[in-house]
Amino acid sequence: MASTVNLKEANGNQSSWDTLLPDFPKGPLCKYRKKASFNWKEMAVFLDGEDIIQLKNRIFSALENDPFFAHRPGEDLSREKYQELTFLRCKRLFEYDFLTQQEIIENPLKIFNMVICIGMYDWSPCLQYFLHCGVFAGTILSASNRFADLLGKVFNMEIFGCFALTELSHGTNTKGIRTTATFDRSTQEFIINTPDFEAAKFWVGNMGKHATHAVVYAQLYTPDGQCQGLHSFIVQIRDTKTLLPMPGVMVGDIGKKLGQNGLDNGFAMFHNVRIPKENILNIAGDVTAEGKYSSSFKDVKERFSASLGSLSIGRILITAVSATNLKLALSIAIRFSATRHQFGPTDEEEIPVLEYQTQQWRLLPYLAAAYVLDYFSKSLFENFVEFFAGLLTKQRSQRQADLGREIHALCAASKPLSSWTAQQAAQECREACGGHGYLAMNRLGEIRNDNDPNCTYEGDNNVLLQQTSNYLMSWMNCIRDKVPFESPLGTINFLQDYHHILGRKFTAVSVEDCMDSSVPLAAYKWLVCYLLRESDLKLKKEKQSGQSDFEAKNNCQVYYCRSLAIAFIEQTVLQRYHDYTHDPNIPSTLQTVLKNLSALYGLWSLSKHLAVLYQGGYVSGEQAGRFIQNAILELCYRLKDDAVALVDVFAPPDFILNSPIGKASGELYKNMWSEILQGNKALNRPSWWAEFCINKPVTGRLRSRL
Amino acid sequence: MASTVNLKEANGNQSSWDTLLPDFPKGPLCKYRKKASFNWKEMAVFLDGEDIIQLKNRIFSALENDPFFAHRPGEDLSREKYQELTFLRCKRLFEYDFLTQQEIIENPLKIFNMVICIGMYDWSPCLQYFLHCGVFAGTILSASNRFADLLGKVFNMEIFGCFALTELSHGTNTKGIRTTATFDRSTQEFIINTPDFEAAKFWVGNMGKHATHAVVYAQLYTPDGQCQGLHSFIVQIRDTKTLLPMPGVMVGDIGKKLGQNGLDNGFAMFHNVRIPKENILNIAGDVTAEGKYSSSFKDVKERFSASLGSLSIGRILITAVSATNLKLALSIAIRFSATRHQFGPTDEEEIPVLEYQTQQWRLLPYLAAAYVLDYFSKSLFENFVEFFAGLLTKQRSQRQADLGREIHALCAASKPLSSWTAQQAAQECREACGGHGYLAMNRLGEIRNDNDPNCTYEGDNNVLLQQTSNYLMSWMNCIRDKVPFESPLGTINFLQDYHHILGRKFTAVSVEDCMDSSVPLAAYKWLVCYLLRESDLKLKKEKQSGQSDFEAKNNCQVYYCRSLAIAFIEQTVLQRYHDYTHDPNIPSTLQTVLKNLSALYGLWSLSKHLAVLYQGGYVSGEQAGRFIQNAILELCYRLKDDAVALVDVFAPPDFILNSPIGKASGELYKNMWSEILQGNKALNRPSWWAEFCINKPVTGRLRSRL
Ligand SMILES: Cc1cc2nc3c(=O)[nH]c(=O)nc-3n(C[C@H](O)[C@H](O)[C@H](O)COP(=O)(O)OP(=O)(O)OC[C@H]3O[C@@H](n4cnc5c(N)ncnc54)[C@H](O)[C@@H]3O)c2cc1C
Ligand SMILES: Cc1cc2nc3c(=O)[nH]c(=O)nc-3n(C[C@H](O)[C@H](O)[C@H](O)COP(=O)(O)OP(=O)(O)OC[C@H]3O[C@@H](n4cnc5c(N)ncnc54)[C@H](O)[C@@H]3O)c2cc1C
Repeated sequence: MASTVNLKEANGNQSSWDTLLPDFPKGPLCKYRKKASFNWKEMAVFLDGEDIIQLKNRIFSALENDPFFAHRPGEDLSREKYQELTFLRCKRLFEYDFLTQQEIIENPLKIFNMVICIGMYDWSPCLQYFLHCGVFAGTILSASNRFADLLGKVFNMEIFGCFALTELSHGTNTKGIRTTATFDRSTQEFIINTPDFEAAKFWVGNMGKHATHAVVYAQLYTPDGQCQGLHSFIVQIRDTKTLLPMPGVMVGDIGKKLGQNGLDNGFAMFHNVRIPKENILNIAGDVTAEGKYSSSFKDVKERFSASLGSLSIGRILITAVSATNLKLALSIAIRFSATRHQFGPTDEEEIPVLEYQTQQWRLLPYLAAAYVLDYFSKSLFENFVEFFAGLLTKQRSQRQADLGREIHALCAASKPLSSWTAQQAAQECREACGGHGYLAMNRLGEIRNDNDPNCTYEGDNNVLLQQTSNYLMSWMNCIRDKVPFESPLGTINFLQDYHHILGRKFTAVSVEDCMDSSVPLAAYKWLVCYLLRESDLKLKKEKQSGQSDFEAKNNCQVYYCRSLAIAFIEQTVLQRYHDYTHDPNIPSTLQTVLKNLSALYGLWSLSKHLAVLYQGGYVSGEQAGRFIQNAILELCYRLKDDAVALVDVFAPPDFILNSPIGKASGELYKNMWSEILQGNKALNRPSWWAEFCINKPVTGRLRSRL
Repeated sequence: MASTVNLKEANGNQSSWDTLLPDFPKGPLCKYRKKASFNWKEMAVFLDGEDIIQLKNRIFSALENDPFFAHRPGEDLSREKYQELTFLRCKRLFEYDFLTQQEIIENPLKIFNMVICIGMYDWSPCLQYFLHCGVFAGTILSASNRFADLLGKVFNMEIFGCFALTELSHGTNTKGIRTTATFDRSTQEFIINTPDFEAAKFWVGNMGKHATHAVVYAQLYTPDGQCQGLHSFIVQIRDTKTLLPMPGVMVGDIGKKLGQNGLDNGFAMFHNVRIPKENILNIAGDVTAEGKYSSSFKDVKERFSASLGSLSIGRILITAVSATNLKLALSIAIRFSATRHQFGPTDEEEIPVLEYQTQQWRLLPYLAAAYVLDYFSKSLFENFVEFFAGLLTKQRSQRQADLGREIHALCAASKPLSSWTAQQAAQECREACGGHGYLAMNRLGEIRNDNDPNCTYEGDNNVLLQQTSNYLMSWMNCIRDKVPFESPLGTINFLQDYHHILGRKFTAVSVEDCMDSSVPLAAYKWLVCYLLRESDLKLKKEKQSGQSDFEAKNNCQVYYCRSLAIAFIEQTVLQRYHDYTHDPNIPSTLQTVLKNLSALYGLWSLSKHLAVLYQGGYVSGEQAGRFIQNAILELCYRLKDDAVALVDVFAPPDFILNSPIGKASGELYKNMWSEILQGNKALNRPSWWAEFCINKPVTGRLRSRL
């Protein structure tokens, strides 16, 4: 894979690094920083390149210096106020306009990094901005040129957009969407209608309070009464001068969520709302003035893979967003663990909790995952950029279609992998910080709560995994028939060796043997082939026993297709990171630690499949499992002194991270204490003090009522 | 185990059940209810008995009819208001005074059920009430008679109590507590002092805003300058007439938490605060007028096991509290899954998501866990009641001491097991409800957030597990020397067969063979012995390689002692449930479903250890693993039609459950829709509309500042 994220030269030297990346304040974390085996600045420059670091610095310091983004310690923001603040912040993002069109074209990874940087501060304004400028504008952009005018209004915020697919009673199953768009020949309009409240648009980000326009998905009906399937339309939902609902539109806020509460998610019902014919987003099809339906695609399949490809960007970004949450949570938990002392060999001498084997084992594999998933999301983004270029230039080659399918299969599993990893890590980090992890100011709750819907939107994780396993199963015919095959990105090419791989065995004979990621990688290749074979057999068996296709597939998920999709994506993610870290051009100063991360991630992920490795006979005997387990522990041990520096590489500045126990100085108690006392009401007597002091309860007074 | 929770006679009949347990409203859930293999009312009466059901009904309807407990849909309660409301609700609990002393003595399980019932409504008032009447009062009660006066003031709320052990920099390691209590002979007072802010009391429930008195743990110094170790003292922290801090006390609120925000957790610093000599809680020791220290215990060990035993009640209750959260989350997710239709064999016919194999496998094992853990927590509570009776009657027998140790070992692992299970289940249920699970009104977020600290307080889960493994390891000498041994509750008696058990193998030769919990139970017995042996060997090896005891123990946790403790408690929990469900006196109408639950829980828990079973040679070959996996799926399938009825058995009334998608009618969309529209601001224009309509951003205006 040729890639700008690959092997950036750590050009420059200590002094240029120092300008880009200032030193951290002295404090309790120095002890671990001194023990690190590498220079964190060199690593940061190596991973991102100076250009991206400069962009990050620019965004971070803009936010830090802007009063609109000031933190409000101890303040109990109401949801309404938080929504307002989010909107004001979103407006500021327009005013900063961090990237020019030119910059984006030159290096698309910049837009990726911009989203991440803003999100590290708070996902609410980030998503608000992105749903409008990215999703809404993007959907219009890909439709036709006739929306150029509207697009202008998007970018100067004359209008505000949202993307309305989900309904109250239908989400994952988009085919079940029941909103209708009926073409009226006489007026050359579409009539948008919600049959009943169960078909109300629901969950739509930005729709709750302020969006003026929505991309609405509806079943298109032509005058002949035919349903032409799901299409999208631009519908104005609020007056741009007053923000009051347009006639026939009932629109509102769905209420408080578990997180992301700056964002206003909404619902809408349409009562025969008429929109001009031009408002159909003619991506998939269009209607003539006479009301005849025409599709721009020769066949349904082609149309399908084109749309699949473009849907992928959302899932790729969520892969990255989740990896970012992983980084935030770990920055906090690792710095806490390195400065929190509890117990020790003697009563006098307490040691940092990071020194405990359990604490290392609970956190360091996630640290490795943060590195591995970060790299993967960037590389997949670059694959998407290639695919998107093909879309823009209207490439209709087989390769383009195959690339669309492959990227779809990858992100349909990388989104689940990354979002679940981050969700579990956020919980583990919360617990790893003991009671202090449960204090809201330390931010682990916000991270967990904001990350949570990554498991659900853009496709529920469990349902998405089926897409990936379907893709993998689709190669079984080639495998069986021994027809050569390959995919544009090569992620399934190893399946050509299927029969051969299935004959392999685990060969390590010592812990030392397992310390490189090639070992879990080889095991993963076997595992994918094994699960592919088993899933294929299981499916056949289900069908033979008389199950319908629908039932048969459903009954092959647990322990088969679902495991297959997960194993495949872990393998792919690991393969990419293995190749990256084993490139001979990697600076020798960084290679050891990077290889350790690769090995730890690989072994730790693999260890969750250990039962299957035994079951299928890849591994046998007591020792094999022990080697893997001991290698994991040994890698954790080797990485513990690098952990703080590894976190320094990706932790945003203190202002952005916004967690007293996660600050770069490591002065956790001072930081917490001062934040508590800044909460102006911390020491106040409660307003309701008389309820205790004067209005005493009469014990048992109400018992007679029971 | 003789127990009132064991085999209650399902006395009475359909008509008496109907009075106790009214029918549910007709609706979409009827379909599944009709398919159930048993009568949910019979089950409820069988599990709880009429007396407890009446108590529950009494409490639930008191709350439902009391305006103080009214829900406020759509209202965005500030933290201060929520704290006030919680306090007012807590006062109402005093006025209801649900149980008389007599009732509690007659059936201590009633107090257990009362806590659970109030908590099902909201944990904040429940914990506030319990910390005061249970923990604070309980601590005083067990000290000496001289506090009778104070105790009166507790129960009429003249004072309000809290329990202050943790400090900002010390939690788990209580030995590290740094607050001091120095005896001043001249005034016959103790001087309570906080050396610096890192030793401030921290996290103390009720202390944030309203407690007037605290049980404060401090290092006791006698006039000879000797530190006598940790002791507890009653310190007044606020004036009872004004709620203003007492002189020398700096007390305040630690701020917003991830959950339980009705409860005010606080901090306190003491600046040489003087308290009368009588305020020492002379549980462990006392000081004479001359300043000489005297302990009421002959030796440290005895003192230790007495205190261990009484500490257990907190962990037992948390085991139950977590099991309750498990029930709440499942009530919501199962009812949703039975009524949410998505996809289907044809485009027209959609099926409930509960019909999908993945959905069953994600939820039903947790449903089984809810039954199993509920039973275990009750039975452990009954064990504790026996132990406590011994404490009250000042029993100093060996059995009493052994019982204290055994109960300690059990709850030090059942708290982790139950709290983690509930935490994972809450997350899984959230995801299983798709987007709607992320809406705050559906309550899965609150359940997850409120359950979370169960993993941390009363001892961090990971640290607690070490207590259990230490207990198990302590039997190795007897095992090695082949000395007979047993424990009061018999939970470790099977270890006498250690050598024999280690020779056993998995014998099932079909899926059908695995369908009873005896199969996982046998496997667990082997697993515990195996992990015990391995942990013991590992510890020896670590020590032989020159590690100190401290290091050696730390390095034996992951994959060894930690797994051992978990396997042991799962085994114990399963054993009790297996015995319960296999008792021939169980009504035949209920036995099948109860046995299915027992088998599912056992196999599903065991399956997480499958790798170790292979590794250690208990299981071998491809088929063995498949049998277990297929048995899990088959049990899920068999239980899916019982799932709604199983949830009906434990779900509280709609008012208490307070989740539109979890209501008993199953009209999820109507319930959600009406709740959203009740939120009075749902349709309002935002107050900040002019920020969009008038104050437009100038795109790029701030770019020059970057
Ligand atoms: C914060 C947030 C923001 C959102 N923003 C938007 C937005 O801006 N615009 C918009 O249109 N939508 C939005 N959504 C909606 C989102 O896209 C849907 O919630 C998502 O697609 C999942 O669908 P669902 O909620 O209907 O889940 P469901 O389909 O109801 O899933 C419920 C459960 O059933 C299971 N299930 C369903 N089908 C199957 C199957 N075939 N096999 C096995 N299991 C199955 C799932 O795994 C899941 O556990 C948002 C949602 C959230 C939470
Ligand atoms: C909501 C809430 C309410 C509370 N209420 C009260 C109250 O009313 N009164 C009161 O006194 N306290 C209260 N507490 C404090 C609570 O008791 C402590 O938080 C708890 O004991 C955990 O201690 P800690 O926070 O110091 O964790 P730490 O000890 O700092 O643990 C941090 C991490 O280090 C790990 N660790 C520590 N020691 C070891 C070891 N030896 N080996 C391996 N790993 C280790 C832990 O596993 C954990 O992951 C409350 C806490 C919460 C969250």
